[in-house]
Order: sequence, then C-alpha cells, then structure tokens
Amino acid sequence: MAQINHNSVHADPLASKKEAWSGRFSEPMAEFVLRYTASVNFDKRMAEADIAGSVAHAKMLAKCGIISQSDLKDIERGMRQILQEIKTGRFDWKLELEDVHLNIEARLTELVGDAGKRLHTGRSRNDQVAVDIRLYLRNEIDQIVKLLTHLQESLLHVAEKNVDTIMPGYTHMQVAQPVTLGHHFLAYAEMFERDRERLLDCRKRVNRSPLGAAALAGTTYPIDREYTAELLGFEGVTQNSLDSVSDRDFAVEFCSCASLIMVHISRLSEELIYWMNTNFGYIMLPDRFTTGSSIMPQKKNPDVPEAARGKSGRVVGHLMGLLMLMKGQPLAYNKDNQEDKEPLFDTIDTVKDTLRAFIEMIPGIEVRKDRLREAVMLGFPTATDFADYLVRKGLPFRDAHEAVGCAVRLASEKGCALHDLSLEELREFSDKVGPDVYESLTLEGSVAARNHTGGTAPIQVMRQVQIWKDRLKNRS
Amino acid sequence: MAQINHNSVHADPLASKKEAWSGRFSEPMAEFVLRYTASVNFDKRMAEADIAGSVAHAKMLAKCGIISQSDLKDIERGMRQILQEIKTGRFDWKLELEDVHLNIEARLTELVGDAGKRLHTGRSRNDQVAVDIRLYLRNEIDQIVKLLTHLQESLLHVAEKNVDTIMPGYTHMQVAQPVTLGHHFLAYAEMFERDRERLLDCRKRVNRSPLGAAALAGTTYPIDREYTAELLGFEGVTQNSLDSVSDRDFAVEFCSCASLIMVHISRLSEELIYWMNTNFGYIMLPDRFTTGSSIMPQKKNPDVPEAARGKSGRVVGHLMGLLMLMKGQPLAYNKDNQEDKEPLFDTIDTVKDTLRAFIEMIPGIEVRKDRLREAVMLGFPTATDFADYLVRKGLPFRDAHEAVGCAVRLASEKGCALHDLSLEELREFSDKVGPDVYESLTLEGSVAARNHTGGTAPIQVMRQVQIWKDRLKNRS
Amino acid sequence: MAQINHNSVHADPLASKKEAWSGRFSEPMAEFVLRYTASVNFDKRMAEADIAGSVAHAKMLAKCGIISQSDLKDIERGMRQILQEIKTGRFDWKLELEDVHLNIEARLTELVGDAGKRLHTGRSRNDQVAVDIRLYLRNEIDQIVKLLTHLQESLLHVAEKNVDTIMPGYTHMQVAQPVTLGHHFLAYAEMFERDRERLLDCRKRVNRSPLGAAALAGTTYPIDREYTAELLGFEGVTQNSLDSVSDRDFAVEFCSCASLIMVHISRLSEELIYWMNTNFGYIMLPDRFTTGSSIMPQKKNPDVPEAARGKSGRVVGHLMGLLMLMKGQPLAYNKDNQEDKEPLFDTIDTVKDTLRAFIEMIPGIEVRKDRLREAVMLGFPTATDFADYLVRKGLPFRDAHEAVGCAVRLASEKGCALHDLSLEELREFSDKVGPDVYESLTLEGSVAARNHTGGTAPIQVMRQVQIWKDRLKNRS
Amino acid sequence: MAQINHNSVHADPLASKKEAWSGRFSEPMAEFVLRYTASVNFDKRMAEADIAGSVAHAKMLAKCGIISQSDLKDIERGMRQILQEIKTGRFDWKLELEDVHLNIEARLTELVGDAGKRLHTGRSRNDQVAVDIRLYLRNEIDQIVKLLTHLQESLLHVAEKNVDTIMPGYTHMQVAQPVTLGHHFLAYAEMFERDRERLLDCRKRVNRSPLGAAALAGTTYPIDREYTAELLGFEGVTQNSLDSVSDRDFAVEFCSCASLIMVHISRLSEELIYWMNTNFGYIMLPDRFTTGSSIMPQKKNPDVPEAARGKSGRVVGHLMGLLMLMKGQPLAYNKDNQEDKEPLFDTIDTVKDTLRAFIEMIPGIEVRKDRLREAVMLGFPTATDFADYLVRKGLPFRDAHEAVGCAVRLASEKGCALHDLSLEELREFSDKVGPDVYESLTLEGSVAARNHTGGTAPIQVMRQVQIWKDRLKNRS
Repeated sequence: MAQINHNSVHADPLASKKEAWSGRFSEPMAEFVLRYTASVNFDKRMAEADIAGSVAHAKMLAKCGIISQSDLKDIERGMRQILQEIKTGRFDWKLELEDVHLNIEARLTELVGDAGKRLHTGRSRNDQVAVDIRLYLRNEIDQIVKLLTHLQESLLHVAEKNVDTIMPGYTHMQVAQPVTLGHHFLAYAEMFERDRERLLDCRKRVNRSPLGAAALAGTTYPIDREYTAELLGFEGVTQNSLDSVSDRDFAVEFCSCASLIMVHISRLSEELIYWMNTNFGYIMLPDRFTTGSSIMPQKKNPDVPEAARGKSGRVVGHLMGLLMLMKGQPLAYNKDNQEDKEPLFDTIDTVKDTLRAFIEMIPGIEVRKDRLREAVMLGFPTATDFADYLVRKGLPFRDAHEAVGCAVRLASEKGCALHDLSLEELREFSDKVGPDVYESLTLEGSVAARNHTGGTAPIQVMRQVQIWKDRLKNRS
Repeated sequence: MAQINHNSVHADPLASKKEAWSGRFSEPMAEFVLRYTASVNFDKRMAEADIAGSVAHAKMLAKCGIISQSDLKDIERGMRQILQEIKTGRFDWKLELEDVHLNIEARLTELVGDAGKRLHTGRSRNDQVAVDIRLYLRNEIDQIVKLLTHLQESLLHVAEKNVDTIMPGYTHMQVAQPVTLGHHFLAYAEMFERDRERLLDCRKRVNRSPLGAAALAGTTYPIDREYTAELLGFEGVTQNSLDSVSDRDFAVEFCSCASLIMVHISRLSEELIYWMNTNFGYIMLPDRFTTGSSIMPQKKNPDVPEAARGKSGRVVGHLMGLLMLMKGQPLAYNKDNQEDKEPLFDTIDTVKDTLRAFIEMIPGIEVRKDRLREAVMLGFPTATDFADYLVRKGLPFRDAHEAVGCAVRLASEKGCALHDLSLEELREFSDKVGPDVYESLTLEGSVAARNHTGGTAPIQVMRQVQIWKDRLKNRS
Repeated sequence: MAQINHNSVHADPLASKKEAWSGRFSEPMAEFVLRYTASVNFDKRMAEADIAGSVAHAKMLAKCGIISQSDLKDIERGMRQILQEIKTGRFDWKLELEDVHLNIEARLTELVGDAGKRLHTGRSRNDQVAVDIRLYLRNEIDQIVKLLTHLQESLLHVAEKNVDTIMPGYTHMQVAQPVTLGHHFLAYAEMFERDRERLLDCRKRVNRSPLGAAALAGTTYPIDREYTAELLGFEGVTQNSLDSVSDRDFAVEFCSCASLIMVHISRLSEELIYWMNTNFGYIMLPDRFTTGSSIMPQKKNPDVPEAARGKSGRVVGHLMGLLMLMKGQPLAYNKDNQEDKEPLFDTIDTVKDTLRAFIEMIPGIEVRKDRLREAVMLGFPTATDFADYLVRKGLPFRDAHEAVGCAVRLASEKGCALHDLSLEELREFSDKVGPDVYESLTLEGSVAARNHTGGTAPIQVMRQVQIWKDRLKNRS
Repeated sequence: MAQINHNSVHADPLASKKEAWSGRFSEPMAEFVLRYTASVNFDKRMAEADIAGSVAHAKMLAKCGIISQSDLKDIERGMRQILQEIKTGRFDWKLELEDVHLNIEARLTELVGDAGKRLHTGRSRNDQVAVDIRLYLRNEIDQIVKLLTHLQESLLHVAEKNVDTIMPGYTHMQVAQPVTLGHHFLAYAEMFERDRERLLDCRKRVNRSPLGAAALAGTTYPIDREYTAELLGFEGVTQNSLDSVSDRDFAVEFCSCASLIMVHISRLSEELIYWMNTNFGYIMLPDRFTTGSSIMPQKKNPDVPEAARGKSGRVVGHLMGLLMLMKGQPLAYNKDNQEDKEPLFDTIDTVKDTLRAFIEMIPGIEVRKDRLREAVMLGFPTATDFADYLVRKGLPFRDAHEAVGCAVRLASEKGCALHDLSLEELREFSDKVGPDVYESLTLEGSVAARNHTGGTAPIQVMRQVQIWKDRLKNRS
C-alpha cells in the first residue's frame, strides 16, 4: 500500500494531499495515474474495520505510553464522529487521498489535529491494510457461515417433506436406481456442510493479527501486539513481520472455499434448470425466481439458477486471478497486492447474494411426485435389485449381473418393464428365478432395501433429517 | 436476456414495468431477485450501441414495410432525444427495468407512444443484446489497437535513443551476452505487434451481425438482415440463428487477446521494477508514476508497473470465468450468458487504462548507461565470442565451448574478466589462441558481430527502428 | 533450455555427458535434479521436427561456408540413420542427456564425429527448441484443422437428414419456439468453423522462423536466416532475437483456440447426454460410444460425451497454466519455459482424440423424431407466432405479447395447447383474432415462416446444407 | 467409473473382457474409444489402495455373512499374490480391462475363481474408486506434510546461521528498512506452516469412508460401513450415498492447498533467482541445482528454482481444470469425474518433487554477507529510524516523515547516505536533531530496535528459531 508522490512541502500533507506527500518529488501526478493506483472507490467498504483497527492501535499506544491519554481521547472522539459521518453518507471520500486509510486519517487530523497525526506512530499502511482486510473478511465469513446454515434449513425443509418421494437416481444421467427426493436434497446439505467446515478452518488463519508488522520489519516503538490482537478479537498474532504484510493466503483460501460453494450451487442449479424443463417436469419454481421473455409470451425461465450457475465462473475466475497475482512476488509488500481487494469483495458479494437467493427459492419449490414416479419407471431402475436377488439365490455377482443384462435387453426389445416379463421369460436367464422375484422389482422394495448409513431407504433418510434438525437447531 | 415476471396486466407494461410484464405470473418479485438478475447497472455503458442498433433495425423495418415511415421518424426522433439525455446525464436509469435495452425502450414508448412499442417487432432481446455487445466491443477493439500503436511509438522512442546502449542480455537472469537496450525495447514492440494482429483477427469474428436471429429461430417478419448489417458497418451476417444468440466466442477470444497483452505488460513491468531496484539501478521512472511510503520517507516505489503486473491476474481471471461460464451450456440462449458482461467490460477498462499508463510512462524512463555497462561486465558476457573465435580457428564448437568454460572458471577464481587473463593464461586452454583474441572480447565487438536479421548489432537495431517508424507512421 | 552442469573436462562432453558439461562445475548432479529438470521423456515427440530443423541449419551453414560440404553430408547421413532408429524404436533415449536435442546431437557425434560437433555452430538450444515447437505445432494445427472439417462433415450428415425434423428450440432450457434438428446441428458447424478460422490465424503466428536468434542475441557467424526459413516452409523470420527465444505466445494462443474447441464440444456433449436421458429420449448413441455399469445391468452410459465434457476443464486448465507460466518473466529465455511443453502436448492430444471420437460418433446418432415432436408440443411453442399474428392484424408488438401471455395462462390452466383453445376463448384476449389464427399455430407453419438468412425454415436450412457441402468439398 | 459395452455373453466376462461385458450390446468397441475412456494407464498407481479397500470390503462381507470365510480366505490369498505381482512388475496390465479395479478383479477371479466374482457384492465401482482415491490421497498428504516439515528444517538451518545477517528489506523492490536474513527465511517457514495446517484440515475431509454407497443409492446387502471404515483407518463414514459417489471436493481442496504451496515456492524461487543475478550477488546455489548453457560457457543457471517457479502455473492449471470439471455436474456419478485423476496425480508428483528439490537445495545456499550489507546501504534504509527519532523528540509522526523526506532528497542529490550528512545539514530539517541522531542511523541499531513479536531484531529472530526448533523436533 503506497502513497502517491507529490512535490512540495506543507505543514499538513494529509490535509492538502494534492500538493504534497513526500518532500523528495518534483512532478505533479497525472489524474489518470491517481485513478489507476487509487483504491478508495472499492476499499471504502472496509471503513468500519479500519476505524476499529485504528482505535485499538491508539488504545495500545496510550497503554504503552507512546501517546498520551488525551491524544487517545481525541482520536476516539474523532473516530466516533467519522464513523457517524460514514454511516449517514455524509463523509466526503476523496480520490486524491487514494484509499480508505488516508481518507479517514486526513479527516481525523482535520477534526482533532496533532493527535490525528500521532495515530500512525508505530504502524504502516502495510500492516494497517492487512488488519483491515482480516477484520472485514472475518465478519463476512461469519455471515456466510450463517447463510450456509439457512440454506441447509431450506434444503432440509424440502427433504423432510419428501423422505419417501421416489425419483430416478441417475448416474451418467441414465436412470440407475430409484432413490428418494429427500435423499437427493440431503446430498446438497452434505456439500454445504463441507463448505462450512472449510470456511471455519479458513477463519482460523484469517483471525490472526498482523498489526505491529509496520512497513515490513516491525517498529522501534515499544508496542504490545498481543494487546491490540486481544482488543480486536484475534486469536493470536502473526509471528513474522515480512510475512505479515505480504501474506494474502487467506484471501486465496477464502476464494477457494467460495469457488467450491459456487460449484455446489452450480450443480444444484443445473438440476433445477433441467427439472423445470417440460420433458422432466419434476418441479416448478416460484414465479419470483423466474422471468418471462421479451418476445415469447409463454416463457417461464429459471433465471435465478441460471444466473447462479453462470456466477460460478465469476468466482473461480477471481480465484485464478488471485493465485496469478501472488505468483512470483518477492518479499515483502508489493503494490500488486492492492489487486487482491476487488476480486475478494466481489467474491463475497456474489456468494452472499447467491446463497440468499437459494435460501428463499428452495422452500418454494413445488414438487411433482407423479412426474418423478413416471420418470423412474422408464429406465429399468430395479435391474440391480434383480441381480442382488440372483446373488441371494446363490449366483456369483458377476454372473447375476450378466444374466440381468440379458433380461433388460429382452424387456427393452419388447418395450416393457422388467416386472412385465413373465416368470417363464425371466427363468430363461437363470433357473434360480422364482415367483418371489417380483417383490424385488418394486420401487418401494428397492429403496427400502438400501437400509444402512447413507442409504436411500426412507427410514435412513428420516434418520438423517432428524440428525440435521438437531444439528441446525443448535447453530441458530 | 430475460425479463422479470410480474403479476398483473396493464395497458403499457413498459411504462409501468413494476406492476406487469407478462400476464401469466401471479407473484410479485422480491427486490433482491431483481438486483440479482438485473444488469442495467453495468450494461448501460452499451447505450449508444443499443440506440444505433435500434435505429438501424427501425430503418430496416420501415424499408421492408413492417412499420410505417412515420413510425420510423418517431423512433428516430425519440432515440435522438434519449441519446441526448444519456450523454448529458439526465436519463433516469431504473433498476426495475432490468437492463439498458428495456430502459431505453420504455423511455422511447413514453416519448413517442405506439411507434416505440413497434420497435421490438421482428427482434428479441437475445439478438438485440448480441448486436449491442458486438458493436460496443468492435469500437473498444479499435481503441485498443490504437493504444497499442501508441505504446509501440513510446517503446520506439526509447529504443531509438538507445540503439547502441550496451546492457547485459540475460538468460535465466544470468548475464549471457551483451545486447543493446534498443534491441531490448524492440522485443516488446514485437510482442505488442502480435497482440495487434490477434485483435484484428478477433475483430473479424466480432464484426458479424446477429440481428434477425430474434429469440433463437429467426422471425416471421420479412426482414432484411443484410441491410441492418450494412447500416451498422458489419462485414456480414451470422448464418445460424441458434448460434447467433448463444455465441460468446468473441468475448472469450477478446479476453484471450487481452490476457496476452497483460502478460506482455507484466513481463515489461517485472523488468522495470527490478531495473529500479538499487542493485540494478538501470533506470529511473518519472515521479508521477511512482509513490512514496506512509512510513518510510526515502521510498520511491514503481507503483504503476507493480499495479499493472498485478492486473494481469485480474484479466486472466476474467478469461477463466468466461470459459467456465460457457462450459456445457446447451443451445440456445441461457441466462448464464448475462454474466459475460462484467468480466468483458472490466477487461476492456483494465487493458485501456494500463496501456494508457505505459504509453505515457515509457518515454519518461531515464536510462543510466553507466550502470548498464558496469552490470554487463560482471558476467563474462563475451565468453560465447571467445568460443566462436576458437571455432573460426578450427575447433569444433563443442570443444571450443568446453575450453572457454575452463577459462571462465580461472577468471572467476581470479576475480577478473576474461580479457584480463594474459595471453599465456588463455593459451592454456587452447593453443589456437592468438593476440587477436582480445578484439573478440570487447562489448562493442560482440554486439556488432551479431549482424543479421533480428540480431542485436546496432546497425540491425537501427534498421528495425526505421522499419518500425515507417510502419507506425502509416498507421496514425 | 539449459544443460546440466558437470565437473570434469572430457574430449567429448556429449558422448560422456554424465561426467562433463562445462569445465567450471565441481559437483556431480543428483539424480532427482536430473529427473526434475530433464525433458526428454516428453519432448522426444519433437524428434522429427528437431532433425528437420538441424538438417536445414546444416544446409545453411554449408551454403554460407561456415561448415564444409563434407560435414553437411556427414550430418545428413547421420540424421537419416537417427530418424530411422527413432521410427523403428531402436533409438536409445538417455535421461542424462536431458532432452531430445542433446540426445540426437550426441548420437550424431557418435555416428559422424566432428561434423556432429560442428552442427551447433551459430545456434543455441534456445532457438533450436523454439524452431522445433513451431514446426511440431504447425503440423498438429494442420491435422486439427482437417479433423474440424471432418467433424463438420459428420454434423452436416445428420443435419441433411433432418432439415425438416421439428424439435423444441430452447432458451433457458424452456421450450421457446420450434426449430429443426438440421438447424440445431448446423449451429455447431458454425462454432467449429470459427475454431478453424482461429487456428488458421494462429498458424500464421506459429509459422515464423526464430532460427538464428541463437541464445538470445543472434550469432557472430554469417548466417542466412531467410534460407533456413524457406527450407523449413516458414512464412518469414522473426525480427528480434530476444523475443524469438522467449516468445511462447503461440502456445498460449493455440491453447486458447483449443479451449474454445473443447467448450464447443462440451456444449454439444451436454446436449447429447441429456438427449440420451429417458425423459428426453431424443437420440440413441451407437453402443461403441457408450458403456455399461459394473453393478447395474440395464445401464447404457454416454461415456464418450461425458468424458469429452470433462476434458474441457483439462484443456482450459492447461491454458491457465501457460498464462501463469509466462506472467512476469523477464527477457530473454528462462527455464520456466520448459514447462510449456507438457500442457501444450496434452492439449494437442486431447483435442485430436476428442475430435476423432466425435467425428465417428455423430453420424451414428439415431434420431427419434416422434419424441422430438412430442416434446415440442409440451411448451406452447407457437405463442410467438400467435403474437406475430396479432401484430399483423394491427396490434403493437408489446400489446400482442401481453395478450398472448394471458392466452398461455388460460391454456396452461386448462392443460391444453394454444390451438386447442376455441375461437371464442382466443377472442377473449383480442378481438383481432379470426379463424385464420389456427394456421399460425401449427409447427410446420411456424418454422417455415422463419425464412431468412440464418432462420430455421427448412428451405433455409437446406440452403445452408448446400453451402456447407460446397465449402467442405473444396477443403478435402 | 463405467465399463465398456460389449456384445456377447460369456461364462466369465472379466476373464475375457474383450468379448463381453453386458449382454445387451451389439457392437464391438473401437480401439480408440477404449483408449479415450480407459484409465488404467494412469490409475494403476492406486493399486495398493484398491487392494486394501477390496480386502477390507471382503472382511466385512464375511463378518456380515454375505460371503463365506472360505471365500474371504481365497480373496485374501489372491490379493496377496496380486500385490506381489504388481510390486515386482510382473502384473500384466490390460487396457481392455479399462482401469485398475477391473484389472485386479479379473486377475483375482483368474486366481481364485468364484470367490473373486463374489468380491463385488454390495459395492460398485463408483464407491470403490472413491475409496481408492481417498486412501491414496490420504497417504500422499501424509508424505507431503512430512516434506513440508523437512523444508522448514532446511529454512531453519539457513535462518539460524543468519540470525543477525543484515540485508535490505524491500517493499516494492525498493530498499525499505534493514532486516536480517534469518528473519527473511523464517517468513517462508510461516508460509509453509500455513500450508501444513491447510493440508491437515483437508485430510479430515479426505479421511471419510464412502464405501457402501455402491452405485449411488446404497446396497441391499446387510453391510457394515463403520467396520470397513475402521479397518481402513477412516475417521468416519460419509452420510449420503449420492454425495459419496459424486463428491470430488477433496481433490479440489487438495489442489487448492497445493496451489498455495507452489505459489510460496514460486515466491521463494523468484528471490533466489534474482539473488543469483550478478547485480544482487547475494547467494550462490550448489552446482547440482544449476546448469550451464549449450552455447555460453560462462553460464551457471538457477534451473531448479526457475523450473519450480514455472511449475506453479501447472498446478494452478490443474486446480482450474478440476473446478471446471465439477461445474454444473448433476447427481450422482458422471463419467466426467474420471478426469479428476490425472490432474490430481500430477499435482501430487509436482509438489513432492519440488519440495524434495528445495529441501536439498536450501541448506546448500552460500550467503554473501558483504553483498547484502553493501546493498542495504544503497537505499537510505534508516530513514524511518530517523523519523522515529524525531517523533521521540516530540514531532508528530506525519511531520517527522515529511522532514526526513527532505533530508533524503538532499542526501540523494549529494550522492551520500543519511549518516553522511552533517549535523548542520540535518538540523536544517528539524531543530530537534541532536548529535545522538547518528546512533539511530546505524544498521545494527535499526534492526535491534524492532524488538517485539514478529520483529526483525536478532534477539526476536533467535527466539523464533528456538520456537521452530522445538516445534519441528516434536514432529519428526
């Protein structure tokens, strides 16, 4: 994080940043360079974190005798007013002050004079910005973790109502075996649970205080890093100043977590989009999550899942951008790092908006059970059950598999289901077949038989629903 | 490109979009879904293209007798006024009208009544948005192509002044052979020339008119696609309506071109950043392209090249996002495609701003010839020349290479340059060495000897400078 | 491209590479470093290009009097034998000789003695490898361009048979308007045509000779770069030696083209996979492109399109890897660049294999016209036609759109098609409706009416088929 | 994971896979489709995991009474022999058996007959492959975690020897403040520590057993999933069968972790490469990690760090490929997923090889303390200390910063260091300057003053060294 050079010397460089930064430069800065390198337009969203960080820093300076108690009071008073100005939209953000940090510091000096100029003692923008992003991101992670819980509640809501709704289970988008819709929705609850775990793991690494690393080497003032860490709710302090100001691992790791969230959303979206297609017709989405067409009056388009599916690329793109950003960067801070913020912020916004949309949309899904049942019957869904039946009668699995393959071929040629074949026909494939075979070929029998942890049997799905209910209740 | 559903029926849905879109929906739309799916905040920058496209469409409709001449006049008059309103910042963009297209159409109908409602005859937002992006991108490509020429002029400016400024040529960041700084800068002119070629190739594929593809299948009105294509300066019309509305190849291809531009910029930036380091000290950058530090008063940081190097990740990230966006999309238009715009627009802005910064910065580079010469002497730069000398005396190249390796080892141990070794010492490695060897070991002799197309000999570099001057003169 | 250091001096360093490279090193090289940095395992596929490049270089050296005619003959003879050895699998590739270049050169010296040692005069591995990749890639591009033509022939084959096969045209995966299957397949022909254009544009930039750039600065020998370029079929020579040895733009550009090819393949694959799903049931794929299941005897999985869809990520990943590889690389050659080959080669293989699979699979698609027709009827496909009818009767388009929306709502509630509504019912929505409205609502009427360039009318599709036939005939 | 279709029926489909898989297919499979979809060439590295998984599965089947004890014994005996055959290179891998799983199962049936055919009871290749990858990856994570520890030991080795070696600390590659080399190397130890944490977090999610999910829905046999999980050392079982067979989050998460490792390696490599440059001359690398040139006899190139820097792109590319692979995949298993393995395996290999190379290279670094000290003096490194001095004398920090900026300008114009300015000159900038100022301007004083957690003071660096020593000792 660097400051634009200016050419003259003034009493208060921050109050008149246009004219002066450091005394050593002789050229005025072109406007476009300012725009190219300034960040205030996007980093002002960290204002609250910046103020919290500054106040904690000031408290520590006072505690350690580096500034006076009276300076601290001035700073606290000034910061309260600035926070108020920002919240009420009255704060005057200035591009020529480059970033959120200098904007606030300049205003502080305007409001409280010399105490404001003393605030930057023992720190640098390099550790200041690192603290701000971490505070900001920590808060956003907490919000996203909550949103994930709400999304799981939404999924659970639909799952519970469909514990025994039979639908086609697909592999390769071909009917494989019957499963229940409740089971299907809970698969996504598992995915978002892993996302939650990952975010909480990531949070540990976000939640360490770099304050005190100063520009890169630490500071000559007798600071107390553990104290500011404590004031700001960090779990500890970083252990190397060079690493502290240049580390952006946490941003990359967060965007990795976010990419997986969006990949899960894109998978769910893909399913909802196809399930809305007339050939499937498995569900209807609430109107407010769909749109019409400017030209085709009959259309009802699943806009929200489509947009969400598209946004997965956006977030993964940001992850790519961040990894490339960090590639080959020598220690310690380089200006390149300023490019971390826009992708990070947009990732946060995209994930939060998308989760919010799905939290509201999922419970509104209208399920068409008849269509689900119709669809599952089209694909010989109980062929595996037939094979398992033969195994129970003594055939090795591989031989049973082969026999059923031939039965399917016959049924397929006759255009009927497996259970429409006569006992004589079935016995063509194995003399082990008896009249009890037909029980194995019902949908209800098929799902109920998969009765173990993680299986699709309604009794197991109901058990999972209960586990999820208890778990989520404890979270909110 | 789809429209948000609304629940009631009104005489003029565009005038009161809040209440009504299509008659078939029964739910009001939540505000956040609107925000999640609307694009007006970022696509309004295509307003001029949208208006041009609409006027051409209207002219065609009138020519083909689909609307009346009087309707056309109304539309043209309305559009002129709207364009004026937009340019002067008086246009009232409404989020609830979703995108630039509906905002303008609604305003048109407000201004000219039924003629406005007839404008959308024979087209859909799907082909409308495709036309708009193509027109918009075509114009931006033309600007970027010009900026590339200006950047080449800047590089040429420095190259011409340094046709015979000798510097270390590096491979593996180890001194390899002496080259001239002019030669070095012209290497980048070559890179940006390929970027220009690629953009012009890309432009051919951008510059085809999808107008008339309508929603996806074409239209039932007797339209004349070639006429609108001609009015809008397209080189031809697309040949398949399904492809026309779903194709975003051009955006991907443009972002690929942009990624390479930024990779070239990142390579140049890396060099400038290291050349500014005190150990190199090869150049100084103009103050306005550097900044100071909030804590270290002596700093002069090469902010612009650093930011530019960082921005390469941003653009490559957008490319990744777009490729992932398109992956697996079935025909024809899906809402996912709306996600093409923000990465595309940000890529355009980033590339243009970056090029502009470099165009101004490069000619301001202050070269320190003494430092370059000092540096080249540190690395036995004429070892290859010594080997070539031995080859001319009859040694096979591989043997000469080996002999010189031993000479370098000796010089290295003695801490001197190759030409500081005595004739006796040199003859230890080969008895072919004569007193004329020392001519081969001068820097000037070394560079001058590389006298062929593309070689670093000042006479060749001067020739390249002249070629570039002629080429660039013809472009501006 | 660099060579591993070794510590002793030998008469023939290439014959006993293990002991010696350059005389200046004192440590033997650990085996794992050799494996980590050697490339022969993957770059030996460039052997033919390497030999062609070397022979051209030798011819030029002889022509320019740098080596003797007798040396040239020795080199040519040796190379003929080496090529034979490689083709017949008798060549002994040695890891300790690092790469294809040193392996071949060492064998050459073994076979022909000093002439072999003279081959490397006036060049370096840096320009040698650049020539080799370009020659290799040029040949692969030519093959891929041919494969694209064959794939278009396959698509055309299906399109021609289905010029008037009506199917649902989708936007947002919702039935939009009827289109023909021929039209649908030709959309992909358009995509692959753009891929072809891009590859041919890329080829121009591949097909320039860097030979003579030597290590980075050119060479002191009186070489003739234009002559080697001509011998090798290059369109010209590169103009800057520093750029010549460090440029990998062509690899990135090729992988960008390849990424778009794979994105197109992934879109087509997605459609085939869903069309194979029993709910769609639009097509059957030939058995040899599908597989069964280890557990479910009834399965017939569309493995090839699924694998192809997955491979799009692989190729895009390689593109990302290459862009990141080049980011921030200073001039001229760095070892990083050796990492260009594996992603490039795997991209070539993946694209070729995938195209070959699709070329054979597409013509084997069995189309189920009845299912396509059934499906299109489910989604009010002629609603737009109804609106257009009303416009022709005088309603502004926006009003017509609104009226039809209400009609669709009614039909939807009644569970019937639009043309099943009675005249009285239809007149509820507009008094402009007459008995002729029913003609607009047939599928055949709908598609036939979209009769303009790029439209889905069978007559237009047939015209496109003819254009494609002529075009492709001229290519083969 | 699917199996290739074949057209005839045989007694033992696995023994003669060429002729038969399922009875329902009628076409022979083209060779290229086999090659396109088979995975045995790259997945055979999971053989050991596959056998372990199968044996555990068989034990569970026997325990639950699904197969007999005698079958179990046959399977165990067969598997022991197969493992032996594989380890000794005598196993005959067959492409027509597609993958590692079928190859082993076929051989098992060959060896032990019907017991082999019973092994697949109650599982599917979908859960089998999921178990195998997890077992395989778990083991590789453990190895990489160990390698990270060894790399930290290597870094610690150099750090300890350079606790008080003063060098320039850079921001923006401009001299900022003096730091110690020990401090610098420990920054990387911190990075690799975070990598370790992330891998251990990732391991938790890898280490859950999907066995029993079967094809997608669970199985009808009375299996005991917890028992196989326990036998295989898993921490628990997955809770949803659909998720279990389609989840590849762990592969993506692992590649995210690996990408950050490689980014850290690329940053360290960048520094080593520049430090080897003659202008820096900070270090020498051991010869065995460098190479010479085919043309320039004096070269000593840092090949290993360059190759490593390049390989960062490769790994990030694989991450991107995997994310794109998973995008939009509907439940449950799709063939696309087979594309997870090659990027995952190559990522593992690349990370392990790279870490191994750095573990050996780092301790061999020869540090040139004189060059480091020379370099730091070039950039006014104690300017901040001067400002801090003025603050201690009562100036607000911002004013002190400005005053020192002017002093630097003067020194810069005079071409001297700050401490070369006379007291009179220094007092020009502030009358607070006294003769004690010179103490603040020494390098030793500067670093010693940064004496707090994470600061660069040698006493702090020594403390960190001790912490690391204790920590690492407990790990090995």
